[in-house]
Amino acid sequence: MPVVGMVGGGQLARMTQQAAIGLGVPLRVLAASPRDSAALVCADVRIGEHTSLADLRSFAKGCDAITFDHEHVPSAHIQALEAAGVACRPSSAALLHAQDKLVMRERLSAAGAPCPAFAPVDPRDPLAAVEAFAAEHGLPVVLKATTGGYDGKGVWILESLGADDRRLVESLSGEGLSLMVEQYVPFRRELAALVARSPYGQGAAYPVVETVQRDGICHEVLAPAPGLDEELAAEAQRLALDIAERLDLVGLLAVELFETGGSAAPGGLLVNELAMRPHNSGHWTIEGARTSQFEQHLRAVLNLPLGSTEPTARYTVMANVLGGDDPDIYPRYLHVMAHDPAVKVHFYGKEVRPGRKIGHVTALGDDLAETRERARHAADYLRWGPAMGPATKERA
Amino acid sequence: MPVVGMVGGGQLARMTQQAAIGLGVPLRVLAASPRDSAALVCADVRIGEHTSLADLRSFAKGCDAITFDHEHVPSAHIQALEAAGVACRPSSAALLHAQDKLVMRERLSAAGAPCPAFAPVDPRDPLAAVEAFAAEHGLPVVLKATTGGYDGKGVWILESLGADDRRLVESLSGEGLSLMVEQYVPFRRELAALVARSPYGQGAAYPVVETVQRDGICHEVLAPAPGLDEELAAEAQRLALDIAERLDLVGLLAVELFETGGSAAPGGLLVNELAMRPHNSGHWTIEGARTSQFEQHLRAVLNLPLGSTEPTARYTVMANVLGGDDPDIYPRYLHVMAHDPAVKVHFYGKEVRPGRKIGHVTALGDDLAETRERARHAADYLRWGPAMGPATKERA
Repeated sequence: MPVVGMVGGGQLARMTQQAAIGLGVPLRVLAASPRDSAALVCADVRIGEHTSLADLRSFAKGCDAITFDHEHVPSAHIQALEAAGVACRPSSAALLHAQDKLVMRERLSAAGAPCPAFAPVDPRDPLAAVEAFAAEHGLPVVLKATTGGYDGKGVWILESLGADDRRLVESLSGEGLSLMVEQYVPFRRELAALVARSPYGQGAAYPVVETVQRDGICHEVLAPAPGLDEELAAEAQRLALDIAERLDLVGLLAVELFETGGSAAPGGLLVNELAMRPHNSGHWTIEGARTSQFEQHLRAVLNLPLGSTEPTARYTVMANVLGGDDPDIYPRYLHVMAHDPAVKVHFYGKEVRPGRKIGHVTALGDDLAETRERARHAADYLRWGPAMGPATKERA
Repeated sequence: MPVVGMVGGGQLARMTQQAAIGLGVPLRVLAASPRDSAALVCADVRIGEHTSLADLRSFAKGCDAITFDHEHVPSAHIQALEAAGVACRPSSAALLHAQDKLVMRERLSAAGAPCPAFAPVDPRDPLAAVEAFAAEHGLPVVLKATTGGYDGKGVWILESLGADDRRLVESLSGEGLSLMVEQYVPFRRELAALVARSPYGQGAAYPVVETVQRDGICHEVLAPAPGLDEELAAEAQRLALDIAERLDLVGLLAVELFETGGSAAPGGLLVNELAMRPHNSGHWTIEGARTSQFEQHLRAVLNLPLGSTEPTARYTVMANVLGGDDPDIYPRYLHVMAHDPAVKVHFYGKEVRPGRKIGHVTALGDDLAETRERARHAADYLRWGPAMGPATKERA
């Protein structure tokens, strides 16, 4: 069996290991520490830095293909591996579009994919660039770091361009951060279209899901997106397959989308971000689809025929579990299992810290409201215990 | 999280690791070699012999509970661990009934569980014991080694007690093998009832399945057992839960059953064998039930509330993949995935040898015949390639 190397030892690599065990594919992980989420559960772990070309080179030796748990490996390093003959999947050329938001916007807009208006921010006069953009497109505007952001980090909404906003732009730019500015899109909700593409060019699309964010962090995923217009769902899948094809992508592609339009009118789609790896919006597929996104990613990376994306239930709801104040989660774990024997709990082996993603739960069912409540109860209880959290109190 | 130690590095430990990753439970494995199926995929592997008390003692240090991938750990060793305060689940007292077929038969018969007639074989005059038993119960009779058998090994059917059979009895007994003799049961088919029991006494029963054996090896599992009388299915589940309760078992219990009776008359049940661990007849639960048997076993061992055993599809068919003559399975793997994107392939990381169990495949569907054909095609093709096997040719 070919060996797959995954750079990064987070929960995505951890869950990829579960799929690799089933497929019989040996998975090697490059982790920063033996306490990393995936390092705790893999047999073949190399300790090293994803920012070190030497570590990457030594890691790649003996791997038949290399893939990534995150977007933070410098593009130049991936190019150097490619030049040395390492099969990097996705390639540096494709991955760049998930690493640099400006590159992504330029490429996608040129290809006619629906994107919000955007502009680069010239570091020599950042304020002038933002003001000119706001004059053309109106306020608020969205300021983004072109690289390095995740989970809401690296994104700022500028409401007024008043003194505070102006200071923020100048200070961020002064720190050397590469910035861009985008139109603020009033959206109805956020969707995600997850597809896979293999080197042969085979593509496979999962049902389009709704992602519910809170404070920039994905809290819930509803699969399929409830009430989504069939045409729009098909358009989202086509759009994601088309982007994968144009970028000659190998592996998974998650396209985060805004569904625009009022509550009555039919909506439209705008691309928000791209991810080229297993994605939080696809965790529901472990139980909710015939082939999990983790297995699908491995199949794509190895140029194996892709698996069926057929859903296994009418509705699947995934809720992220965030750390609460009490690090001793085990008693709460027992409660959740006793309360709902059919809810599936996934823990990432991470130390509990307030607000940190430490796992997720999945519920499946025929009734969306009930399924959603089951997932939310489990996630809230794991975080807060019997006191439950503000969200639950709000609902009560 | 509590640490679970599993003695034995076979495919059951390997698949338990997949479940342990999801639960966030650290799994430690005692393997005979780093090339063992589970050792290839676990982070915490200790190399040692399950027959060495010193190895077992050192393995158990730091584990919150110990469980087993097979029945071959000497009972006296498990007792010694228990005396030292190690939580062994199942206990030596319970496990003995899966280790010694005579002990099992005596205990179950005394408790009124339906068993075939049986008798010990006195090593001082083995032939006399077998002849006396045959005189009372008729021929053929089944000769069994009381310990150490698996996959049809350790079981001999004596048709006539002619010269060959007599030589066999004397030579087996002469080798020091402890023997017993049983009534030969003409059965309609074989069933398996899989249940779990936790230290609190919580029980959970999976749907009763039909197991299809060939040459003493399980080839197919049909879940649920097609056309099984509802009363009989409930009786099988009750029987298994009752055995678990009586033996104060913790973990999984698979009760292999004969369904007796003609094709028209309602059948009855007879207990064939017991296993106290994840069992081949339960591999279908990975995709086919809300909680896999591997997760369920861990939950029981840790005294966590048990998970839902609800099936996820109308029919699930599991077929074992045996090694063929050609060890290069990868091209056949590709074919199987391309042929049926929804079939799930599980490989155990074992070297391919003719007739060796190297994996299994699972298919799910609404139509039993079609689902069964999908699983059989995948398993046959993985073994034989385009020539396919004798079984397929027979069907053609």
